[in-house]
Amino acid sequence: MSFRSERLRLRVRFGETDAAGIVFYGTFLAWFDAGVSNLIRVPGIPSAQKDGKPTFVLPIVEVGAKFYSPLRVDAEFDLVSTVATIGTTSLRVEHEAFALDGTRVATGFEQRVHCRIVDGDFIKEPLPDVLRAHLSERGESTA
Amino acid sequence: MSFRSERLRLRVRFGETDAAGIVFYGTFLAWFDAGVSNLIRVPGIPSAQKDGKPTFVLPIVEVGAKFYSPLRVDAEFDLVSTVATIGTTSLRVEHEAFALDGTRVATGFEQRVHCRIVDGDFIKEPLPDVLRAHLSERGESTA
Amino acid sequence: MSFRSERLRLRVRFGETDAAGIVFYGTFLAWFDAGVSNLIRVPGIPSAQKDGKPTFVLPIVEVGAKFYSPLRVDAEFDLVSTVATIGTTSLRVEHEAFALDGTRVATGFEQRVHCRIVDGDFIKEPLPDVLRAHLSERGESTA
Amino acid sequence: MSFRSERLRLRVRFGETDAAGIVFYGTFLAWFDAGVSNLIRVPGIPSAQKDGKPTFVLPIVEVGAKFYSPLRVDAEFDLVSTVATIGTTSLRVEHEAFALDGTRVATGFEQRVHCRIVDGDFIKEPLPDVLRAHLSERGESTA
Repeated sequence: MSFRSERLRLRVRFGETDAAGIVFYGTFLAWFDAGVSNLIRVPGIPSAQKDGKPTFVLPIVEVGAKFYSPLRVDAEFDLVSTVATIGTTSLRVEHEAFALDGTRVATGFEQRVHCRIVDGDFIKEPLPDVLRAHLSERGESTA
Repeated sequence: MSFRSERLRLRVRFGETDAAGIVFYGTFLAWFDAGVSNLIRVPGIPSAQKDGKPTFVLPIVEVGAKFYSPLRVDAEFDLVSTVATIGTTSLRVEHEAFALDGTRVATGFEQRVHCRIVDGDFIKEPLPDVLRAHLSERGESTA
Repeated sequence: MSFRSERLRLRVRFGETDAAGIVFYGTFLAWFDAGVSNLIRVPGIPSAQKDGKPTFVLPIVEVGAKFYSPLRVDAEFDLVSTVATIGTTSLRVEHEAFALDGTRVATGFEQRVHCRIVDGDFIKEPLPDVLRAHLSERGESTA
Repeated sequence: MSFRSERLRLRVRFGETDAAGIVFYGTFLAWFDAGVSNLIRVPGIPSAQKDGKPTFVLPIVEVGAKFYSPLRVDAEFDLVSTVATIGTTSLRVEHEAFALDGTRVATGFEQRVHCRIVDGDFIKEPLPDVLRAHLSERGESTA
């Protein structure tokens, strides 16, 4: 894989589980998003604007995930998030979650589009050069 | 009680429970907030601005809750949210949640302050007259 | 459509939005799950067991969603959840979310497998007859 | 302070913010709970039972929080969670959140009661000796 990849060590919070005794599946999207936050954090550029809006606005147009093995409360695991495709305006990120013993927990992808928010509307716009360069780097950034 | 009050029928979602088999306690704050949304919804005024910011910005400075009886997944219950105090800039809302058999589930309060967001900062500001008038009415608004 | 379908009127809660001013995408999975809860609620059978576990254990093995139009805080919308396929042990549910003006907000699907929890393990098991019959009915159940 | 205390470095996830551009206040309870998970993690004792239930069942009977300064998406901060009181069956934990520049973000407390779950009911029970001893230690455990 030639693009940026990030490994994030997480621990299952109690509120992220459900009454079946395992992680609620919607929680994975919150984790995927945390992985993307690590990928798009460019040194020297604040992640949020003064009004709280994210600096890089990357709404999701499609998401998919498969679940292989459940996680219990307080379990530690690793989430590996990798830039798979960089288009003119779009970005595809792939995710894999592994238990600490190496068991595959889940995989997933997000298809995102870079936008500028103009008067409340999300207008598709080419990825900024600084973000494109950052996402294209091979190594892991400092999380 | 002389100020506005709202009753909201809710149902426990699976993702709102936790591995102990009951509602995760943090979920109650999301419900309290839904009750407040009903209280501050003024006919003819959109709840959100074009950029997605809420029309009435009412950050919470203090919250408290007591829990009496657990709720299971898919249980229906009622949340009664009542304006308790209306200050110059502040608002106190009290909440009570009841199971359908009348069992008290939880009580709570929120102390909120009306703000304007100026260049990203939250600046305390008197409650708008239209909101003050709405909150002061005795009846229930149409949820 | 030959299987059960449910329409659920929802309203975007403040905590379900994010700093971009729209609904956080992970929230859709919580809503999809609420739709499924309506589908699997069989008259006369409690949704939860005494220990809080769901009566019908249907973990998700795959999920996918596409997002077409953003939702703002306090917006009302409809979620239509439809049983698409009923296998021996598996269930596919398809979801469509519409704004009140008919704008398509999102679509999605969940592939679920019926399980029995044995000593903490999720063991695949044929769908119970009562659930199969319920899911196969054409009409909407009482939400 | 003579009892156990834990410091947890966290980072605000996108899904934890709301349309006002800051952290949704209910998120703090999820963080408080993560702090408690660190406090009650006893070396050599798994945090979850085979059926996914937590090993130490400590439902909350009261919670309170005050909010001083907002957090933006992707901001790092520290949560300090401290055992304040250890009763026969009860536990009081106090929380303080600080931005990395030392600004106080929020404070809070939780009053919890140790329970055994018997046939789905939460029965108050003295804190297990091993947990009491662990909570009474002065130092930080390895998070």
